[in-house]
Amino acid sequence: MRELKVDLGERSYPIYIGEGLLQETGVMFLKHGIGTKSPVLLVTDETAGELYLRKVEDALAKSGYRTGSFIVKAGERSKSLSVLEDAVTAALEAGLDRHSAVVALGGGVVGDLAGFVAATYMRGIKFVQIPTTILAHDSSVGGKVAVNHPLAKNIIGAFHQPEFVLYDTATLKTLPEREVRAGLSEVIKHGLIWNAEFVDWCEIHAEKLLSLDPESLEYALYEGCRVKSIVVSQDERENGLRAILNLGHTIGHALEAVAGYGELLHGEAIAIGMVGSARLAAKLGHPEEIHAVTKRIFMKYGLPTSIPSHLDTEAILGAMMHDKKFVEGTMVFIIPTAIGTVEINKNVSTALVREIVEELKEEG
Amino acid sequence: MRELKVDLGERSYPIYIGEGLLQETGVMFLKHGIGTKSPVLLVTDETAGELYLRKVEDALAKSGYRTGSFIVKAGERSKSLSVLEDAVTAALEAGLDRHSAVVALGGGVVGDLAGFVAATYMRGIKFVQIPTTILAHDSSVGGKVAVNHPLAKNIIGAFHQPEFVLYDTATLKTLPEREVRAGLSEVIKHGLIWNAEFVDWCEIHAEKLLSLDPESLEYALYEGCRVKSIVVSQDERENGLRAILNLGHTIGHALEAVAGYGELLHGEAIAIGMVGSARLAAKLGHPEEIHAVTKRIFMKYGLPTSIPSHLDTEAILGAMMHDKKFVEGTMVFIIPTAIGTVEINKNVSTALVREIVEELKEEG
Ligand SMILES: NC(=O)c1ccc[n+]([C@@H]2O[C@H](COP(=O)([O-])OP(=O)(O)OC[C@H]3O[C@@H](n4cnc5c(N)ncnc54)[C@H](O)[C@@H]3O)[C@@H](O)[C@H]2O)c1
Ligand SMILES: NC(=O)c1ccc[n+]([C@@H]2O[C@H](COP(=O)([O-])OP(=O)(O)OC[C@H]3O[C@@H](n4cnc5c(N)ncnc54)[C@H](O)[C@@H]3O)[C@@H](O)[C@H]2O)c1
Ligand SMILES: [Zn+2]
Ligand SMILES: [Zn+2]
Repeated sequence: MRELKVDLGERSYPIYIGEGLLQETGVMFLKHGIGTKSPVLLVTDETAGELYLRKVEDALAKSGYRTGSFIVKAGERSKSLSVLEDAVTAALEAGLDRHSAVVALGGGVVGDLAGFVAATYMRGIKFVQIPTTILAHDSSVGGKVAVNHPLAKNIIGAFHQPEFVLYDTATLKTLPEREVRAGLSEVIKHGLIWNAEFVDWCEIHAEKLLSLDPESLEYALYEGCRVKSIVVSQDERENGLRAILNLGHTIGHALEAVAGYGELLHGEAIAIGMVGSARLAAKLGHPEEIHAVTKRIFMKYGLPTSIPSHLDTEAILGAMMHDKKFVEGTMVFIIPTAIGTVEINKNVSTALVREIVEELKEEG
Repeated sequence: MRELKVDLGERSYPIYIGEGLLQETGVMFLKHGIGTKSPVLLVTDETAGELYLRKVEDALAKSGYRTGSFIVKAGERSKSLSVLEDAVTAALEAGLDRHSAVVALGGGVVGDLAGFVAATYMRGIKFVQIPTTILAHDSSVGGKVAVNHPLAKNIIGAFHQPEFVLYDTATLKTLPEREVRAGLSEVIKHGLIWNAEFVDWCEIHAEKLLSLDPESLEYALYEGCRVKSIVVSQDERENGLRAILNLGHTIGHALEAVAGYGELLHGEAIAIGMVGSARLAAKLGHPEEIHAVTKRIFMKYGLPTSIPSHLDTEAILGAMMHDKKFVEGTMVFIIPTAIGTVEINKNVSTALVREIVEELKEEG
């Protein structure tokens, strides 16, 4: 088992990563001083719930906790205010009080929803995360929680740090292969913005990671979380540095929106976006090699590196302009200046972005 | 104009109280460093909006601010998640960004709703309060914001402090008389828990306050806010001392629920509750005089001091047991130990409370 401390002063918390940790849920609750008098609410989705809810309930019961559960449909649509209202109904029926904890058992959808329930129920109670997807390594650091509005993703939310995160790598074995690849895209992103050696390591260990070798997985998730936590520690409320975590996301979000949500997975869309940023880097005078390496690694992971040709360029640009990161005629982009380092460039012209989008459609 | 600083470290903020302050809205925005580049969203209800929205919009426009507005139906039912969703639609349509502010123009309902919008929109933006009821002196201190759930009041919320509070006493002239009395009930509560001299002052100045004499009103609101702010400064997240603000509320909330919301105004219900707490005090050996003074002052303000006889005693007790303040067989009560001081008593038996409720039904 590896342990990582996310350093946020009073709100610091540990992330435990290892195989078979689900069984330790109750013990970990006790260790973190969560009282057994108040009931716990487990929030999960139908898929993760079917697979792992019982195990977590049993582990908590063994340590003397009473639990209630709230199970949502799998998928992004569960991050809504109406599902939040139902979650609060479940919390009230389970008798949650101010000393209770809400647990997220599942991927990023469940994490964001349950975290927002914890942030707002009785104006904030304890929160514990048990991520069961690779992508959720990302959402388990930083305390961003939210639901969607019909007009905008993640627009209603809070910063609410968990008490701890319990990451059982064994749960990842049931993930569909496409979700594995897409999750690893975000792991590699953390290398690309901060740690060149880790990018190398990811390239060398591609097969091991894709086959979910426990030791490799443990290290990769640890390193992904570690990079994110360094960035977040320096900028908890997203005032500056934290923007570098958006490498590949300006293009990626636009592609998700234009393709129709669900068509491209988030990790796939940002893989394309990162190849685009690498192309932008070259145009702005940074080493050509960045593009070659970026593209090669995503191809190795079976991730897309070009924009599906049927997507309309102007629609993609239009979607970017709606993105929060757009400010008057020029756009804010995260640009790699070498493998393992990026800069925040607030001055990328719309014309240049159009060029990149066109090129990405032809990129093989 | 009086100015009160609510002392909360980094989150400290001033409350300005005086006649005619609405006109100064724009100037105050500038003074508090709110940028004119980002639009402002004004949240109000139909009644307060009809009376004062235009004035605030004009004052902001004169200082260079763009505004959007969101107008809800008057009344508690607007504190809901579905109205929150509509408010976010309005915020998005007005183009609010991370540097924008949300303004609450109205009573406590609008304050709680708009505050929760500000707390959660893009995970938290600036908030300004312009209270237009007397009761809202209470909600303008402490940063508690929330919406209701069909099963529980104020259960979904946050702590979100405003940038500043602008309290124009002139707006109170249009308040229905019953709202004036009910609002003053909460002002007197602040005297009863903390400041015996102020209780005297309130008794002497009853006529002046009820006729909305500007100078008396300014002082009373100042003093009410000041007491609350002292308590809140010592206990921002409601872990202990803050409970004393609930004087009269255990009984009061139960009466509101059993009478049917809207039947008794909040300030009326807690006036009865405070008389009940004074009776409890006597039973627990504290001076009899507390009851006499408490009752006399509320009578002077034309507030109810007895429980309407058609309300069922067991229903009232049942409602109290659902109250957050109830713990296993005994109840937590705020008990006056003299005029101007209270204690938190965690050991009041259900039997004694039943006795008090019965007596309150006969209290003339
Ligand atoms: N808060 C943050 O900082 C942050 C960061 C990144 C992403 N996110 C959010 O995370 C969400 C995406 O996360 P995600 O990709 O984990 O999505 P997800 O939660 O929808 O999970 C993906 C799919 O995998 C299924 N699943 C989960 N665990 C499984 C398991 N162990 N075995 C088999 N199937 C399993 C789920 O049911 C779902 O169908 C988005 O809503 C995004 O906004 C948040
Ligand atoms: N956040 C807190 O700390 C806190 C504290 C106390 C109460 N509250 C909340 O405040 C709410 C009650 O506040 P309230 O009594 O101000 O209720 P309210 O906002 O509903 O206002 C009462 C009535 O007066 C009308 N009104 C408002 N200003 C007016 C004016 N100037 N002239 C004429 N009519 C006017 C309103 O339209 C409404 O009909 C409750 O929801 C309660 O939960 C919150
Ligand atoms: Zn991402
Ligand atoms: Zn009150």
